[in-house]
Formats: sequence, structure tokens, C-alpha cells
Amino acid sequence: MKKDISALMQKRNLSAIVVCGPDGLSSANPNYNYLIAPAHDISGLVIVKADGSRTLMHRTMERDEAALSGLPLINLDKYNRKQLIADKGGDRLAAEVELYRRIFADLGIDGRVGFYGVEDQGKSYALLHALAREEVCEIVTEFEGDVLLEARATKDEWEAEQIIKACRATENVMGETRDWLKQHRVVNETLLTGDGQPLTISLAKQFIRMRCFEHGLDEANTIFAIGRDSGVPHSRGTSSDPIMLGKTIIFDIFPRLNGYYSDITRTWCLGYAPDHVQKAYEQVMQVHSASEQMFSTERYCWELHENACAIFQSHGHTTQRETMSSTSGYIHGLGHGFGLAVHENPSMSLRGMRPDEKFKPGTIICNEPGLYYPDDERGGWGVRIEDDYWCNLEGNFMRLTEFDRALVI
Amino acid sequence: MKKDISALMQKRNLSAIVVCGPDGLSSANPNYNYLIAPAHDISGLVIVKADGSRTLMHRTMERDEAALSGLPLINLDKYNRKQLIADKGGDRLAAEVELYRRIFADLGIDGRVGFYGVEDQGKSYALLHALAREEVCEIVTEFEGDVLLEARATKDEWEAEQIIKACRATENVMGETRDWLKQHRVVNETLLTGDGQPLTISLAKQFIRMRCFEHGLDEANTIFAIGRDSGVPHSRGTSSDPIMLGKTIIFDIFPRLNGYYSDITRTWCLGYAPDHVQKAYEQVMQVHSASEQMFSTERYCWELHENACAIFQSHGHTTQRETMSSTSGYIHGLGHGFGLAVHENPSMSLRGMRPDEKFKPGTIICNEPGLYYPDDERGGWGVRIEDDYWCNLEGNFMRLTEFDRALVI
Repeated sequence: MKKDISALMQKRNLSAIVVCGPDGLSSANPNYNYLIAPAHDISGLVIVKADGSRTLMHRTMERDEAALSGLPLINLDKYNRKQLIADKGGDRLAAEVELYRRIFADLGIDGRVGFYGVEDQGKSYALLHALAREEVCEIVTEFEGDVLLEARATKDEWEAEQIIKACRATENVMGETRDWLKQHRVVNETLLTGDGQPLTISLAKQFIRMRCFEHGLDEANTIFAIGRDSGVPHSRGTSSDPIMLGKTIIFDIFPRLNGYYSDITRTWCLGYAPDHVQKAYEQVMQVHSASEQMFSTERYCWELHENACAIFQSHGHTTQRETMSSTSGYIHGLGHGFGLAVHENPSMSLRGMRPDEKFKPGTIICNEPGLYYPDDERGGWGVRIEDDYWCNLEGNFMRLTEFDRALVI
Repeated sequence: MKKDISALMQKRNLSAIVVCGPDGLSSANPNYNYLIAPAHDISGLVIVKADGSRTLMHRTMERDEAALSGLPLINLDKYNRKQLIADKGGDRLAAEVELYRRIFADLGIDGRVGFYGVEDQGKSYALLHALAREEVCEIVTEFEGDVLLEARATKDEWEAEQIIKACRATENVMGETRDWLKQHRVVNETLLTGDGQPLTISLAKQFIRMRCFEHGLDEANTIFAIGRDSGVPHSRGTSSDPIMLGKTIIFDIFPRLNGYYSDITRTWCLGYAPDHVQKAYEQVMQVHSASEQMFSTERYCWELHENACAIFQSHGHTTQRETMSSTSGYIHGLGHGFGLAVHENPSMSLRGMRPDEKFKPGTIICNEPGLYYPDDERGGWGVRIEDDYWCNLEGNFMRLTEFDRALVI
């Protein structure tokens, strides 16, 4: 949680954290958005000192938007980049190093500094390498599980509230989509539009996009995939595919409301489900329920995935325990945290991947077992059911999503 | 242009380019999107060899989406990250270094390699530092004007076509917004909604957002700012402000169509314009026209900005020539390239900032002179007019935007 940042910094002996917010990347810069909220969509730089105090450095043109953060502000233009570049004979990297030297001097920062925020890889390397070489600070890197990822892995009540609102709005879209599908007439097992054309995946996605828009949700990359495509976990679906009875539709939707994600999946068979799909659905729900029952702050996250693998194996499916590159069976992890990014910590995956990760008060995570058979000779299919959970500050897990899990509609 | 990448690499003596496409960052990773198009929204890695040939490395789950790129594919899962991490005793950075070692061996890459694509700053530094230390490759960094920015700074005909389509759709939204504003009745110089409430900035933004949606445009952060806010270049406007006659409205809209931006600004005064605003508008249009006439592949980009400063100075305004941190006068650059990002090269700014930058066949750039007086005692105001231009492959400049530039509506 945000309030833990200072303690997490002290654990790492960090004097300061620098989080860059480059121009144009705000939609995909969760660490920066985390620290400047409720300000958003401005370029700048956040600096966090060891006591947890934050300063937002912004440009003159964006002073109004920067003020929304409620943070102490420093106008970056006062450092006069133009002059710095001239002083360094046009060497922009040297000018940037000098800029950091002055900022750190003004804020009283020296020693161990960690750098976060998204930026071009090579540019980041050039800058941090130069800061180290010129002894502006000591660069601290954590390749995995860094201080801000650790903070963001647990959500405070305000953040949980944002995610619950996102879940509610998303469930509304799912319900509206289900009702809309039901309104179509069927000829030769194919849903038809008013003018007698087959209802396609493309039209369904347009409908979903419109409903998200109406509910204030930022939507992108929704998975609405039928038949063989539903057997490929991240296939978005083929636009021209007709929507037909008896085929599995995987509807995996992860839009944002005010920057925070929800992440929900349902599998639908319109009209009827073939026996082998019904059976797979029951196995997926068995794992889904078993996982729900195991959620506890006493557990390692990998335990739930291992248990899921064991159940699926007992039903004869290939899992990640045997191979990481199978295209059929239970072929992904059981779930992941989410919040300002759609994938955050913790992660329910193989023991070897994250051996020490436990659930904590503030964890928000999805539970999404699935089975995939894209090349089944009876016709490719997939089943996945995904719900969201919050481990509240007392350590009790609550399911945040209540939307009907029925397979056949 | 994309076809120049190999030549640009040879100029820099690069053996290979690696462009990362981390999970969840696709909406803000223009280099990656540039190289995988028409595929999009998948995580992975693109590797470009010195001959310009590209390979897309993807995950099993996203093999369908990866195939849309039309590029040769390699499934990253074949390297078995799980096993690599186990082999390195849980050290994920060491495992990542080993992954790159194997990928480079398979693709026959050694020597000088540049890294692009957006990723967490500290994580990038840790990885590239380790790759250099372990002698997996020689890391080549360019802090400014790197090989892909240089390629993207000129657009081929297909890209220009995408941007022209985005401009057309954006102009439609502007026209619809103007017509919609005109339909409102006015009491005490304030526009009113059907139920007699003041029409606010918030309602105008909702309308614009809806129209963008209808035209297939991805919209975010549109500036629709009135009065004092229009005097702060990047102010998005205050939601609760009523829309009134005689005040300047700056409407700066930069949505995307199929990933490509347009960027257009108009300044409107409803009903009438105060004399001082009318005068400022004419000065802005004087600079706008002077800039249009100077567009030429013979020119340095800074010449147009210096000329703009000279004209504005002759009318008594402060410009960036005197200070970089003024809040009134002509306080930003004259324009910037755009494409897959809203700010690309070239840039019309001060001579010292980019001394060697010229216009080239394929340049797409906006021309956006403006004047800003947020604290004018007669009431704060701002004026900006922004149009888009393409220098075609024969080196001739064409204006891409035709929307009416009138101040008073």
C-alpha cells in the first residue's frame, strides 16, 4: 500500500525513488500514475524521499493539472534545459545528468536511488549509466519485485473501492451483452441480425465497446472468441466468425474505470453445450471452487496453482507441471493480482517461479482456471471462468464479482 | 521510413535492434507497434537484424495474434523460462541474461546491439548492464534521435494515408461539436442545456468523446478549455466551467485511428470576440501563414520557430527566446512531428535545441502558434490554431487539415 512505501524503501536502504513520467506514456505508466493520483495524464517526474514524502516536478504548461495531485510541486522549467544543453555544447545526455545533479542537490538527495516509471530501454540505460559514472547517485536496481511493485501488490480501501466499482460496471456490460445475444433469432444454429445476416464476433465487440463507453469504462483488447479461437487463451477472436449455438464463447473483459482494472471471464454456450464441454466446465468450476476455499493469508500463492494442476491432471489434462509450451490442457497460471496494471503481484503460478509469495491483507487477485482444446476433432473449444477477490485489511477474502457463472444461456 | 531501417542501422554499425513489448504496455510502445503492425496488443520481442529482417518472438497463448504481423515467428516458450530460472537458482535476472544469450545464438547475432521499446527504467538498466557485463553483446545507446525515432520521423505513403484518415475523422468531430454548440440557447451570455442548466466543459467533453467513439477514434486528454484555462497551454479545462459567449475556447484534439494520431486545434469565441482577442487571433494567423510559406526541405526546423518568435516579439509578446518559464506570451514551440506517438520528430523549437534538424520527404508535422494570457485583468484568454502537414515523397508540403479556422462562431 502507498502508506508502506517509506518502510519498503528503508528495508532496501533507498535514499530516494525517482519515477519518470515521459510525455505520451501516461496510459501505460502505472508507477507514475500511482504516485501522482488524482492528477493524471501529465508528463513530469515524481521523487519520493526516504520518509515517504513526494514531490511532483512538472512543466509550466501543465501546472494546473499537476496541482490536482495535491503534492508539493517544483517547476522543471526553472532548471532551464535549453541553457543546460547549451552549457554542455549540445550534449543532451550530459545536460540531463546535470539536471539530475541539480534536482538532487535541491532536494537534499544523495546515496542510493532507485529509478522506476516506463521509458525507452536504451535511453534509460544511457541515463542511469551516466548518472552512476558521474557519481550523481548510486543506482539501485531490482530486476524483480521492486519497491513499487511490492507497494502496489496490496491495495488500501480507497483502491479496493475503485476496483469494486470497475467490477460492477464490467458486470453490467456482461449482463447487457448476454441479454443482447438472447434477443437474436437463430437459423441453422446461427444467430442473425435484423437484416438476416449472421451475427459476427465483430458486431459483438462493437456492442461491448459501446456498452463499456456508456458505463465510463476504458476498454481495449476484450477477448470474445468462439470455437477454435476460444481454445487459444489470448486469441481475441476472429472478426468475421459467426456466432453459433453449441460452441464455446470465451468472453474475457478487463476494462478500466478511473485508471483501475477489473478482470472477469465467462464461458458461454448458446442454446446447449456438448457433453464434453459441459464436463470440462464442471472440472473448471471444481478447480475454481477449490481455489476459493484455499484463499488464505497462511497460503503460498503457488499452492493454489499446484492444487489446480493436480485436479486437472487427475482428470487427464496436461498442465504446466509437465510442460510450459503445450497448446492443450490447463496451460496458464491460475491467477494474478491487478490494479493500475492488468497484471500485478501476486501471481498464482508454479512453485519455482515465485517460491515465497503469500497472500496478504490488501491483495486483489483473480482466480481463472481454464481448459483449452483448439484442435479437438469435434471442433476446437475452450472454457475459462474468472472472478476477482479482495483480501480485506482483516485478512478475510471476499469475492468481488457476482455475475452468473452459468455455461448455457 | 521503415524501409530505411537497415541503412540507418548500418550508419550506426548496429548488428541488431531489440525492441521489447512488455505485457500491458502496448498502447504506449510506438517502436514496438511500428515493427509488429498490423499485429497489435501482444507481448513479445522484435529483433531486427542488420539486413532489416525482423523476427517476432511471442508466447504460445498469443500465436494467433502474432501471426497477423506477417513476420517470421519464434515461440518464446521454447526457451522454457521456468527451467532457466531453476537452473540459475531462482535468479531471474541471470535467467533473462541466459535467455538473450540463447536467442542471439539462435539468430546469429553478436556485436553491437541497440535496445528500444518501453520498459521500467531500473529493470532496463539492470538487464542491459548484466548483458554488457556477461558479454552477451555490446550495448549501443543513443540518448537522443535513435535509429527508430529517425526512421519514424519520415512516413511512407501508407502511414501518411493512416494519418490523413485520422485527420478527416477528427475534423468531422470538430464540425459536429461546433454545430452542437450552436444549437444551444443563450441566457445571460451563458449556453443552456435543454433543462435550463448551464452547458459545462464536462458536458462538451462527453459530447466530443461520444462523437470520437462513433468515428472509431481513440480519444484521451482532449483539451477543451475556456477563459483563463485557455491561457494555460496544456490545461484540459475545468469540468464545471460554464460555456459562455465572448470567451476564448481552445479545442485541441489528438485522437488515434488505427494507432495513428491526428493533432488539430481551433480557438472559438461564441457570439463575438473581444477586440484584444481578435487582434491576438490575427497575429497568430499571421505566424501560422508565415510558417506555412516557409515549409521547405531546404529549411532547418528551428528557422520557422525563430521566425514565429520574431513576429510575436514585434507585436510586443514575450517568447521562448527571452525565457523558458514565462506564463504569458508565445510560450511553446511552433510544432512537432507526430504519427504513432503524439510527439515525434522533427520539432520546430529553438535553434540551440535541435540545430541540425531539417524537413524531409515524409515529414508529418503540425504548425501550432499560440498566445496565452491567463492572468489578463480583462479575463484570462488564449489563442492557438494548429494544422497538420505532410511533406510528400517529392518534397512538396501539403496541408492535411482543411477545417474552418474562423475565431467567432
